[in-house]
This record gives sequence, structure tokens and C-alpha cells, in this order.
Amino acid sequence: MSWSLNEISKHNNPRSCWVIINKKVYDVTDFLQARRDATSAYEPIHPSDALEKNLAPSQHLGPVNDDAASAIEKDVAARKQTKDELRVVNALKQRPPLNRIISLADMEASSHKTLSYKAWAYYCSAADDEITLQENARAFNRFFFRARVMRPVFRCDPSTKILGFETSLPIFVSGAALAKLGHPLGEVNITRGCAPSKIIQMVSSNASLSYSEIAAAAAPSQTLFFQLYKHKDDDVALQRIQEVEHLGYKAIFLTVDAIVPSNRERDVRSPWVLDDQENGHKFFIDGEGAADADPGLGIAGALIANDDRDMTWEKTIPWLRKVTKLPIVIKGIQCVEDALLAAEAGVDGILISNHGGRQLEYALPPLEVLYRLRKRHPEVFNKLEVYIDGGARRGTDIVKAACLGATAVGLGRPFLYAQGAYGEAGVRKIISILEREIITAMQLMGVSRIAELTPDLVERVDWLPVERTARL
Amino acid sequence: MSWSLNEISKHNNPRSCWVIINKKVYDVTDFLQARRDATSAYEPIHPSDALEKNLAPSQHLGPVNDDAASAIEKDVAARKQTKDELRVVNALKQRPPLNRIISLADMEASSHKTLSYKAWAYYCSAADDEITLQENARAFNRFFFRARVMRPVFRCDPSTKILGFETSLPIFVSGAALAKLGHPLGEVNITRGCAPSKIIQMVSSNASLSYSEIAAAAAPSQTLFFQLYKHKDDDVALQRIQEVEHLGYKAIFLTVDAIVPSNRERDVRSPWVLDDQENGHKFFIDGEGAADADPGLGIAGALIANDDRDMTWEKTIPWLRKVTKLPIVIKGIQCVEDALLAAEAGVDGILISNHGGRQLEYALPPLEVLYRLRKRHPEVFNKLEVYIDGGARRGTDIVKAACLGATAVGLGRPFLYAQGAYGEAGVRKIISILEREIITAMQLMGVSRIAELTPDLVERVDWLPVERTARL
Amino acid sequence: MSWSLNEISKHNNPRSCWVIINKKVYDVTDFLQARRDATSAYEPIHPSDALEKNLAPSQHLGPVNDDAASAIEKDVAARKQTKDELRVVNALKQRPPLNRIISLADMEASSHKTLSYKAWAYYCSAADDEITLQENARAFNRFFFRARVMRPVFRCDPSTKILGFETSLPIFVSGAALAKLGHPLGEVNITRGCAPSKIIQMVSSNASLSYSEIAAAAAPSQTLFFQLYKHKDDDVALQRIQEVEHLGYKAIFLTVDAIVPSNRERDVRSPWVLDDQENGHKFFIDGEGAADADPGLGIAGALIANDDRDMTWEKTIPWLRKVTKLPIVIKGIQCVEDALLAAEAGVDGILISNHGGRQLEYALPPLEVLYRLRKRHPEVFNKLEVYIDGGARRGTDIVKAACLGATAVGLGRPFLYAQGAYGEAGVRKIISILEREIITAMQLMGVSRIAELTPDLVERVDWLPVERTARL
Amino acid sequence: MSWSLNEISKHNNPRSCWVIINKKVYDVTDFLQARRDATSAYEPIHPSDALEKNLAPSQHLGPVNDDAASAIEKDVAARKQTKDELRVVNALKQRPPLNRIISLADMEASSHKTLSYKAWAYYCSAADDEITLQENARAFNRFFFRARVMRPVFRCDPSTKILGFETSLPIFVSGAALAKLGHPLGEVNITRGCAPSKIIQMVSSNASLSYSEIAAAAAPSQTLFFQLYKHKDDDVALQRIQEVEHLGYKAIFLTVDAIVPSNRERDVRSPWVLDDQENGHKFFIDGEGAADADPGLGIAGALIANDDRDMTWEKTIPWLRKVTKLPIVIKGIQCVEDALLAAEAGVDGILISNHGGRQLEYALPPLEVLYRLRKRHPEVFNKLEVYIDGGARRGTDIVKAACLGATAVGLGRPFLYAQGAYGEAGVRKIISILEREIITAMQLMGVSRIAELTPDLVERVDWLPVERTARL
Repeated sequence: MSWSLNEISKHNNPRSCWVIINKKVYDVTDFLQARRDATSAYEPIHPSDALEKNLAPSQHLGPVNDDAASAIEKDVAARKQTKDELRVVNALKQRPPLNRIISLADMEASSHKTLSYKAWAYYCSAADDEITLQENARAFNRFFFRARVMRPVFRCDPSTKILGFETSLPIFVSGAALAKLGHPLGEVNITRGCAPSKIIQMVSSNASLSYSEIAAAAAPSQTLFFQLYKHKDDDVALQRIQEVEHLGYKAIFLTVDAIVPSNRERDVRSPWVLDDQENGHKFFIDGEGAADADPGLGIAGALIANDDRDMTWEKTIPWLRKVTKLPIVIKGIQCVEDALLAAEAGVDGILISNHGGRQLEYALPPLEVLYRLRKRHPEVFNKLEVYIDGGARRGTDIVKAACLGATAVGLGRPFLYAQGAYGEAGVRKIISILEREIITAMQLMGVSRIAELTPDLVERVDWLPVERTARL
Repeated sequence: MSWSLNEISKHNNPRSCWVIINKKVYDVTDFLQARRDATSAYEPIHPSDALEKNLAPSQHLGPVNDDAASAIEKDVAARKQTKDELRVVNALKQRPPLNRIISLADMEASSHKTLSYKAWAYYCSAADDEITLQENARAFNRFFFRARVMRPVFRCDPSTKILGFETSLPIFVSGAALAKLGHPLGEVNITRGCAPSKIIQMVSSNASLSYSEIAAAAAPSQTLFFQLYKHKDDDVALQRIQEVEHLGYKAIFLTVDAIVPSNRERDVRSPWVLDDQENGHKFFIDGEGAADADPGLGIAGALIANDDRDMTWEKTIPWLRKVTKLPIVIKGIQCVEDALLAAEAGVDGILISNHGGRQLEYALPPLEVLYRLRKRHPEVFNKLEVYIDGGARRGTDIVKAACLGATAVGLGRPFLYAQGAYGEAGVRKIISILEREIITAMQLMGVSRIAELTPDLVERVDWLPVERTARL
Repeated sequence: MSWSLNEISKHNNPRSCWVIINKKVYDVTDFLQARRDATSAYEPIHPSDALEKNLAPSQHLGPVNDDAASAIEKDVAARKQTKDELRVVNALKQRPPLNRIISLADMEASSHKTLSYKAWAYYCSAADDEITLQENARAFNRFFFRARVMRPVFRCDPSTKILGFETSLPIFVSGAALAKLGHPLGEVNITRGCAPSKIIQMVSSNASLSYSEIAAAAAPSQTLFFQLYKHKDDDVALQRIQEVEHLGYKAIFLTVDAIVPSNRERDVRSPWVLDDQENGHKFFIDGEGAADADPGLGIAGALIANDDRDMTWEKTIPWLRKVTKLPIVIKGIQCVEDALLAAEAGVDGILISNHGGRQLEYALPPLEVLYRLRKRHPEVFNKLEVYIDGGARRGTDIVKAACLGATAVGLGRPFLYAQGAYGEAGVRKIISILEREIITAMQLMGVSRIAELTPDLVERVDWLPVERTARL
Repeated sequence: MSWSLNEISKHNNPRSCWVIINKKVYDVTDFLQARRDATSAYEPIHPSDALEKNLAPSQHLGPVNDDAASAIEKDVAARKQTKDELRVVNALKQRPPLNRIISLADMEASSHKTLSYKAWAYYCSAADDEITLQENARAFNRFFFRARVMRPVFRCDPSTKILGFETSLPIFVSGAALAKLGHPLGEVNITRGCAPSKIIQMVSSNASLSYSEIAAAAAPSQTLFFQLYKHKDDDVALQRIQEVEHLGYKAIFLTVDAIVPSNRERDVRSPWVLDDQENGHKFFIDGEGAADADPGLGIAGALIANDDRDMTWEKTIPWLRKVTKLPIVIKGIQCVEDALLAAEAGVDGILISNHGGRQLEYALPPLEVLYRLRKRHPEVFNKLEVYIDGGARRGTDIVKAACLGATAVGLGRPFLYAQGAYGEAGVRKIISILEREIITAMQLMGVSRIAELTPDLVERVDWLPVERTARL
């Protein structure tokens, strides 16, 4: 059976909401959006198998009919580009050649210009006033080096292992969702860009490509980890775990710091900014009743609406151990006390993280938590591997974290920015920049292997250093 | 008897000063202003019963005569709007729809545009260089969270009790005077806006509506507190207490930090700014003698001219206990030592406050005093309830104070701004924003009830975090 | 004998340099300037008796002849006003009425506009990068109040005594030279402005009026102190001391922090700025030899060229005790150790001061030295009186210093600015502002007499408060 | 044999690369640049003997032929000046006369305007985000003086000795390469400018004049030190040491903090900035393969490509002792631990330095390392001489370091800036500025000899002082 636009358009309300995606009709009444053709909004943020996985067969209503299909095609053809789309087209023409990108800050600046506003707002947004976002990065600024001299460093090897898997640098791609927002090829840009240097990619549950598409893009021996947002229904969660285990993913990073939506204002405001830009400001008060309408939670809110908000150490970890043989890492540890509980629970690793400042505003910076943990409970580092993510942008940042006990440092936004602006080549570029910066820092500190990076080489200073951007 | 303008105009000097308010004539020689028609200056800052309460019957001189009445009406009709009034009219047309107000900062920004300059200057002004005002807010920036994970938070309840009275959130409306300056309906905007969410309103002695008008606007079971500025004459003070007790107010917040006028320069300068804007700058030196003329104390100074400046623990608290059965809270505690004295005096609560930075410049920020009190004298929190006000603008601010022992946090200016810009709907809006922010923060900290907010969940950091406005 | 311009003009070189001042000719070969008519440069910075005191009779060459006199008069009449002079004339017309000056910052801003550039540069300049100047003021920002409530303050008396002499406020005029640069009446503006409020004026050795002119302007019982720059020749110094003792000055403040010229770049650059402004920029390199020419030391350098640079505790204090019965105060103590030595030497007081940041760059702020002294050596405050100067601009600043043990706080620049912009009335105005601010602060702290200002009322905070000017 | 342009132009690739320098042809295939006429790029950064020393005789291919020579001459004559060259020509005409340069900051500002962009970028560039560069200078800001008064300072002598050699001030010229980039006379400007004041110049291995040219410019008894970049081939290194020993250099400063190239982005970007300025922005992506091309390491990288990266205390110091009788100083100590090892190794001095912030980003500021060393290991100062360099720009900076135990303070960039803008006279000027500033500071601290500068005269403050440039 196929559907006419006329028929479809009747189902345009909360009680019965049908949408068209790629000329097929779906009943999404359980979700919240009601549009005629949802393709352009749907595509960049959903993997190809999302409809299969999330809609019951009865909700797949079948294709549109021929008239509808040609009407849609005409619509698409007739659509005028928005101002933001035109801006992006122009920016892509003027972006600097990749060999002029010599730092991750350069990459971010280039990406800022070439990403759609929506993508930029989603990628860079963070909770509330974005204090935590900034503090994550500023924390690195407080640690200075006690560099050693007169040590042989001609040969310097920055490679190490994460959960037993090789990596050429003590970094990994931290789970970062919705790469397709920034580039049509999405997450596989990262997969392919990481392959030559054996950098491990952690794939988000909310990736905009399916887990199998990403796995298929990986090189034969390439390592992928999986960032699990646990569904509140254990069976649904189990299905997801079994899928990725089957696809060859090598570890489960259980996300525990993003179980409820947070307040990312830049993301929430994004459609208003675009509307205003397109149409000019046309504010009005449309009756005080409407004024209380919920502004929504941005992209981020929708992604985790069904996640498990009642996980516990006692219940969740044993369940996870039972259903999978993969190493388990807790992603989102935010204080020393929970690091101890994680060690007690017998997990394989913890990722100290506040979700890149996107969840709880005023969570302590991961580097500060790492510093406290290393100082007060050095024994923990023998029981599990410790990683951090959030704010690292320079080789020296990575090296500082390694000195304080981190096995590796995750980076999220930098990879999204890099693939957004230059695709796979952008990913390769930032890895090569970090490699150069890490090796240089190690050599200038008198260090030639990762294992030699020890706490005595760094000092937390008691003054307020100048901000990194102060001279840029 | 009725009065001609001619007759009235003779009484235009400090020895005999008559004014017209709503076409009635009053002898206000004891006060300081001498104008022909004082209605427009008088209305926004005085409740309807102010003349009855404050002028002896002999000072009520009766109505103007018909000629005067029609002359006044003609005057009013002929009056050209000032530049500031025109600005406000325009700003009100362009204010953003309420569903685009997603933070208290948004609300303040919108209010800044739509308030008259005089209202804005009065609301936002603070002592001297406004250091204390800013430090009150900045103090929250120094406390970070040690968030806990893997705790069940699906059900999260932010309700609590203040002096035994229910509230849906650990906040209340702190006494903030002169709501009519910002909106013709004045304080009842707040009363009505608070009703659905059971937020308690503390009504100022200097409210611009009468205590009975506000009480009449309240819902049947709605709780109101009363902020007492104690008159130097105990009998006058007693009369005020009996009135509000009779009207059903549920507690007395005795103001002790504003017994003398302070130096609020923005408020003092407000008429000059308006004059200059209206007429262009026309400075001149009119003889050196005049140069010593007192510039006045702004609106604030006049309000408390007759307050008791000789209150003591020994005299005032026992007197107050004797004249009322209502719970007594001391509003304006500014150091640990006085918190101890208050506990000794047996009052029911203390509100740690420096009057929103409007009185003593360089008073310690309330959050810092709370932190010291919680650390050095945790036993005090068992003897009385502790509240703070000043600077809180985010759900995380409220949660931090609750962690450090505050039963609830008062907010003043935010309610004035909200009702000024959007009336009752504005008040509802900021309550719903705070509710969302408080619940989100609690859930992301692994906390599901107010009682679980404990000092170990916050950490006072030793670095200087980035300012909240740094990225706005 | 009288001199022709022709004859005078021959003495225009370092070997024989004659100048004309008020139509009299002087041989100033021992000094450094060579100009035809030095009156306009000389007048504003020298008292009327300077030539008598500093030039031997043989150097008084007598009057110019009639031709010269009328040529000079013609010159003066024909002289075009400079751009800076025109700017000042205009600024004076537009200065705000005094009743709109409500803070010392207002006064400084007004003065900045109405002073000649030369006067402004001399008054506000400080050593090197003016760090110390700013730190003197910023130090006050680090001390917050622990205000007390419920204490009777209706009656509040800010009067006290300095060296036994009454003052209505715990402040005094710290020695500040060259008032005539800013106003034709010079230092007597300060003298007369201080009379009604019994504020004590410390008169500088480098005053631009003679000590007797200033004494003559004082009210019958008005107290004047004398700031002694000790001449390297004890006899010359003695002469000066005897003169002021005879004139009724009540104490000697021996300056010990300005015995060599310092580096005040704003002052040094002042003539270049004016030249460039008048003539446009006309830079050139006139041969490399000339490049090494000394740029001079500004006004300040010349003033102290002959001061004693070899004073010691052992030699100088006993000598001073011997030659005068007046109380002796050491002005310019900059560390705790020297405060102890001063107490040992038996002087009557110390003025902790770094010369308003004008001498040694990176001298500790006086308030910080006071704080350390009070903490480590409270006994010193029983042996002598302690004052500070530098950076105080608000009543709260004065009160903080008083809490930390200062008998009184000196202010210098504020009095120069006030008399420069508004003469005597300006001086009265800033005293009345400070009086209001001091009383308000005391009352809001629960304090009614100066003696009640004790160290427990202030707290040195460990964070960086916002700068005072951040919102202005 | 002589070469035609045609023949030469064939060797324009990485496999065979010939260049023309001063009309002679060289085979520089082992190096990286391939241009037709390299003279203009080569001259400013290489001494005259560089080709002889660094190229094997077989690589000297001989002169160009006559046709080529005249073609080159024509090329040079026809070459249009670049925009940057025109800017410099104009700036040199407008530079302020030297007597208006009254601080090192003035000199730097003047130099900024008159240097070519390439020179400026090379001189001022530093590692990564230039945090260390700035922190080196900011460290001085944290140390304040406890100035002493009443001490005889009429006679004040700032002279001292470095390794037994006289100097009029406790400063020296720290090794700073490539002076010819800034001025055609190059390093001898510094040599001659230092002669009158007996300031010691440390000559870099990478000087743009030959060691003998510099030695020849020195006055008879003038002291020169040598900054050794040790070649990885001991024999080449030995040759260099013997050369400078023979030329009369008086000490070897072994560079240990710059053994690998660092990341100086300003320097790396310099050619792009100039290209863009000359040609307008013409960005494009020329295929993703090219995107990975290495952007190069700027001037700095090339200079140290062959240095020894495997030096150790055990091997290198004994070798150095064996091959030279000159005093040995380790340049680039960055922590207390290595200062102790240096003392153990028996060297004559250490220069605490992080290479002016040009090598390891986040190395501790030298002043902070000095402070820690003085506090924790005062005995080290008896075993060897301690110097620092990096960030000192004022007399007070020098004096602070001397108080904390530094025998002398090195300055690098200030001498490059001074000679770049004014040649030898600029060098004399900054020395005379520092002399005045050092003497003034000493006198105002009550100190008349360098030996009296002791740690008790300085205090490390716990607040954040205002930045030096805040008022400029």
C-alpha cells in the first residue's frame, strides 16, 4: 500500500502523527515531532537502522504513492537554500589548506566557519553557562612541568596500551554523537582517520551511523570500543550489547553521567537563532498561556529519553558482567569516592569525565579529580585503568594527565570538528599534530617512554596563569 | 472644603508644603518634597493606604476644587511622554515571547529593556561600587560539585518545608520593595505567580501595595511571610505587626541590616540621568554655596528614615516575642558570631543576608558566611533554620546552599525583574526554570530528596573559575 | 641696575644661565633650565619665597629694564593659548555641579577633565608601570567586613585624635606637593577647605606656596603638620624646621621613602605629549650621539635633588629630637622590621607609606604592611601611633585601616584633585563625602565610636574580588 | 667551472638541490630548501663562514657563469619591494628619537614597528600558546619588596662579577641568535654596545655572524661567553669549542633545553602571513594527499637539527671538562632536582632557563625555580653560580632575582629588539635604562651594594597583582 500526501497530512497532530522519511511513511505518534517531510531533520542525527530498531513493524506504514513522491522531489528541488546553508557553502570554498592547520585550535576555528550553525551549536554547547566546559580546559593550565635535562631522548616512543589494545598515542576518541550533523560521511570519517595510527575509537550509542556501518569501515585489526547508554528496559539494553559484541567491539563504556537531559542553552536556542536569521526578528507575545510552553531540550534531550535512571553499583554492574565478557569501563566518574566504589565493584577501568561539561554544571574538572585520586589513593591505579576526558587540546595536556596516572586521555569534540571540516583527512591531521606535540613534550621533559611519565614531573601551581587564548 | 491651585501653590516651601495626590491635597511639610502634583512620583512607590497610615488626619486637607481638578486633568492629558517612557513602550512591543526565556539571566536582560530607567536603577542598584552585589553572586562560582553516580534518581522530589510551611522548592521570595515601579499590578503579580507552585512570598514593609491588598490576592492556603522594618516607635511597630498577624501572614522576618540609609549611587543618580537624557547636558556651577547641597539618598533612603537604629538582642527580641506568636527570623545576619547570638536568643531562624549588596559594601557574601557557619558551628543548624539570600540565579546555586545547610534560598531581584517584564506569567516562568534546574542538578548529583544534599557533595575550590558571563 | 633682553639672552647656556621670573632676573646656572621667560613654568611649582631661600643674594640680578618689561608684557599678551589650555577652559565650563559629585571617583574624573595635562600627569603619575599605585588601592579590596547587627548606632561619632590633636574623622591630608599646578590658589584651598571639619593638613616641604602663606590661611585653632624633606646640609634642614615650628606647625613627618628621584614615566613624558599635541608628531633621529641624552626626571626629580641620602636611625633621629620639641613621625615605613626599629628609636608615630606608589615600584601596599604589623607585633601599636596612606578612596577603606590599628589614614591625590577642579569647595565636598561614607559604614557594622573598630571586624579573603571599576 | 642558470635550475628537487648564494652555487640536497637564488633568505640568518663549515668541499660547486651573474643582478634590481619591506622603510623614518625611549617596553614597541615581520615573528615567537613566555615575565609580578629605610645609599654600586669577570651590572646578554635578521650589522651591534659598560655578551652557536667576526668587534678587555649547541658528533662539537677557546671566549654555556625543535607557531606561520599580505588570501584544498604535508618547523627547527639528543650527566660533562679548560655552565636547568645534579657534576654555574619560553610549554618560570632552589637548597649557591633568564624587563626584576640568589640575570630578546631598531646605540640605551632602574631600586630599598640584596628583602605575595600592561 502507498500513501497520498493528502492522507498523510491528516495525521499531523499529537494523537496521530505520521512522517515521511526517504519517501516512506512512519507512524511516530509516540515521538513528538509532526512534519510533512522529516527527512532533512532526521537524516543527520539518526543511523540508517534507527527506524527498524525503534519502531514496531506496525508503525512502518509503507511508501508514499507516486504523486506524493514526485511532489516531494519537486519540493526538495524548489527549496531555496537558507542563509546558513549559503554561508557554509561559501566557507567551505575558503577554508585554509590542511597544511596550514597546525594546532587543534586552528582546526576548531576552521570547523566553526564551515559547520552548519545547528551542528556547531550541538557540538560546542554545554550545560548552563558553560563554566564546566571552560574549567575542564583551564585545569590543564594550572599544572606546570618540572622538566629534566641531560637524559637521552633521541629515541622516544609514545605508544601504549588501553585495556590491552595497542595505540600509538595515549589518547582515544571519546564517544561523541551525531557526526553526520557535521559531515555526510559521519562517524566513519573518524574510523578511517584513526586506522593508520591505531587510535581507538569509542562509538556512541547515539552515533548517527549504525554500529555495523562503523564496524564495516574499520581496518581488519582496528580496535573499536562501545559507549553504552543503557536503556531502562534491560532486554533492550542486552540486545544492544549483544549486537556490538557480535560486531567485534572490544569494550563497553557504560555512561553514568548523562542519565537525564541537561540544560544546553546554545543547543536549545539553535532553531530560534536560525529562524531569526532567516526571517528577521519577529517577537510577539501570543497570549500568556502559550508563554509557559516548554522550549524543549534541544537535540541532546531527545537522545536519552529512555535511558535507565535507576542504575546502582549493586544491581547494574553484576548484570553487565553476566551479559557480556567484554571489559567494562564506567564513563562519567566525577569524584574520588566513586572511583573507589568502581574499584570495589571490580570494573576494568574508569573514565573520569563530566561529559565534556555538557551535563552537571560545576562538576569538578576531570584533571582535578585525577589529581586528587592520584594523591589520596594511588593504590586505585593498580586495580583498574584510569582515563580522563574533557578539555585536552595540546600534547602537553595529554602528557600532564599521563604523569598524574591516566592510561589515556579521551578527546571528543576535536574529532567532530576535524571530520566536520575536512572529513577523514581532518582526523588524520589532528592525530599527527598531537603525535608531534606529545613527542616534543616528552623529549623536552627528558622522557622517552610513556611509563616514565610520573607525578614528580608536574607541579600544580598556586597562581592564576594567563589564559591560553590571551594572545591569540 | 476644596482647594484651588492658586491656594495650594503658595505652600511650596519647606515651612509649608502641600501636595496633590489623586486630586486630594495633603500637608507633607514633615516630608521633603514640594511639587504641584505629586501623583506620578507617588503612586509607583506607595501602597494605597500609605497616606492614611502616615499622615495625621489634620494633614488630610481635602480635595482640590473643580477648577483645579480639570486643570490637573488637562495637564495630564497634555503631558508629552518622556524619552524614557517612549523607550519602554517600544521595548514592550519587542520583548521576546516568554517561551524563549530559558534562564534567569534571560529574564533579567528582557527586564532591563522593558523597565523604566528609574525602576531599573532602583532594583539593580547596590552600595558604593557594587562590589558586594557582584561578590554575592561570584561566591557560588567557587563551589564545585562532587557528583555521585549509580544512584537511583528516576523519582526526584525537590519539595521541602520552611518554618513548617510547605514549598515545592527550597526557595522563597525575599522581601523586595516597590514592585509597582516595574509593573502597575505590583506585588500581587508575585503573589499570584507563586500560588500554583506553593512558593512562599516574604512581603516587605515597604511594599508598594498594602499588606491587605497582597493578602487578598493570595490563594486560600498560600503562605506569606512579613519582612519587618521596625519603626523606632515601638507602638507604631506593634500596630504593623498586629495588622499582618491579623491578615494571616505566617512569620516575621526582622530586618537588621538596613537600619540606616546606604549609598546607592545608581539610584541617587537616576533623576540626573533622566534629566540629562530629556534635556541634554546643561551643567553649570551655581555658586559655591549651593555646591554643598545634599544630593539626597535616592528612593532607598526615604523608605527607612524612621526605622529603629538602637535595636539590641537583649531588648528587641524579647519585646518581639511578647507582642507576637509568629515565628521570628532575623534577616541580615552577616557573620558567624551573630548567628551564634541569634541561636542563643532563641529565634526560629536566621536569614544570612547583606541585603543584596545594597547596604554595607564589603559585607561577606552570604554563601561564604554559611560555609563558615556550617564548618565551625554545625550545631547551630539544629537550633534554628538557616536561609541565605543574595546572588543565587541558577538551580545549581540553590543546590549548593542546600548542601551547605541552608533550608531555603531567598531571591529578590529576579522576582522584581520577572513581574516587571511579564507580570504574573513572568513569575511563574522563573519558578518553572528554577524547578527544572534544581531537579536536573539533583539527579545529576545522584540525589533524589532535599535531605540528601550534604556538605560532602560540594568543594570550595582554590582557583579562580571563569566568570559566568565570560562567554555570553 | 636693570637688564635688557639682549643682555639676558646671552646667558642662555649651561655655563651662564639667567632667567626672568616676574620681570626680575636670576642667575640659575646651578640649576638646569635655560629659557628666556621662565615665569609660566616657574610659578605653578614654586612658593613665592623659593628664590629668596634658594638663591644667594648675588644671584638676584635685579629687574629687567623697561623695554624688556614691555616686551615681556607684549609677549604674554600675544601668546596664543595652547591646545591643552583651550581644552581646560572648555572643560571648566562644562564640569558638573558639585552636588552631582557623590564619590571621590567622581571628583577624580571631573578633575581629570579640568586639570592641565601637565598637572594631571604630575599628580597621577607613579613609578615604572604604576603597579604599586594600583596595588595600594587594590589591597583594600581584599578585606571584607564581619558586620555585627543588633547594636545601638543611632548616635555614631567618627571623631578621634592624631598626636593629641582633634580631627572630626580618622583621616588627614597627606603631604602632596605642587597644588598650584592644579589651581591658582594652591595649597590654601586645602587649608581653608579643611578648617570647618578640623581635618589636619600635612604641608609638604615642596608646597607651591610658602609655609607662612599656608599658615596664614589657617583658622585660629587649625592644626597643620609639616612633611620634612631633609636637606643634606643639616643647617639648611634646621633652618626649615625652625621656620615651621615658629609658624605653629604641630608635628614633623620626616620623609624617608623619597630620598632619590624615581622613575615616573607619565611625568617624564608629559612635555613630549604636549609638544606632539601642539605640533603634530615630528620624530627624527638627530645623530646617535644625541640619542644618549638624558630624558630628565620630570618634575619630581628636581624637587629632591639636594635631599639627605645618608640618613640613619642612629644619627638622624637623635639629631631631630635635639633640634625640635615637635612630635616626630617617620613617613615612608614599608615593612614590619622598620616599624619595630622606629618604635625602638622612640618616635611618636609612623606613617606606613610607599609615597603613593611614586617611588619604589613593588613596595608592599601599606594596608598589607599594616595587616602584617598588627598580626605579628600588636605591641607596637601601644608604643607609637600608626598611620597609612595610599589608595584609600572610600569610607570603607578608612574603616578597614582603622580596624587593623591605624589611628588615621592619609589621603593625598584626592585633595589635589578636589582643589584642582573646584578649589576650596571641592576640598569641603570630598570631606563631607568621606564623613557620610565613614559614618554609614560604622553604623552598618554595629559600631558607634572609632575605638570600637577592631581587627575581628575584618577578614582578609582568599579569593580575588572583582575590581572596583569593573561596573563603572 | 661556472654554472648557467639553466643547468642550475634542473637541480630543483629533493633529490638534487642546488642553490645560489652570492653568485656561488652550492649543493644543499642534504638540507631542505630549493630556490633559485637563496641569497636573500640565507644572508640574514647565517654567518659568513657557515657554508665553509657545513658543506663538504665537494658541495661547493663554484661560481655562476657571467650570464647567470648578470641575470641575477637584473633580478635583484628589478625586484619590487614587498609590502612588508615598504612598511619597514616607512617605520624607520618615523621611529621616535632614542631619548624618548625610557623603558625596555618602549624599545620593544619601537622595534615591533621597525623590524621585518619575519624578524619580529622569529624573535618574539615562543612555544605553543606562548603561555610560558608570558609566565616567565609574570612571575616577577608576584614578588614584592620589603624596602628598608634610614640606611645610607648616597654611594650605590651595582657592579659585580660573573665567573670572576667584571660587569657593571648584574646582567648579561643571554644567547640570542640571528641578530642579522633585525639589523644588517647583526651581533656586533650588541658587542660594541656592551663594551663601554662591561656587560658580558653570551654568543650563540647560531649567531648570524661568525664567532671570529664577533670576537674581532670586541674591545681589548671585553668578555664574551659562548653558548654551545653541542653537535651530535663529538668531533664537530670539539672543533667548535676549540675555535671559540682560541678566539678568547671565556666560558661555555652548554644548552640542554633545546635539543629538539619545538612548536613556535608564530614563526611557522610567518611565511604564510607574508604571502597572504603580499598576494591576498587565496586558500584552496589541493587534494587531500597534500594536506598531510609537514608545515615545517620554522627557522628555529632547522638550526638545531643536528644537535646531540642523548647527552647525560655521566657522559657529557666529563667529556666537556676534558676538552676545555673554560668554566662550564649548564644553560636550561628547569627544576630544583637538576640544579642539585649540576652541583654534583661539579659545573661552575647553572643558568635556570626555559629558553625564553621557546621550547617546553609549561616549563616553570625561572624565577619560581630560583625561589624554590633558594628556599630548599641554599647550600647550592655556595657550590656554583646561579643565573636566570627569561622575562626580566625592569631594574626591579633584576634586583628581585639578585635578592633570591641569582648572581646575574640574562636578557635575550631586549638586546635583539634594541639592536634591531637602533643598532649599537639601542644596545647602549637599554643598558643605561637598566642601570638607572637598578640603582634607583637599590637605593630605595636601602641597599648600596649587590651583596646586600638578600632574600628577606622580597616577599612572594599570595594575591594576583595587576598585569604590567594594564594601564599602558
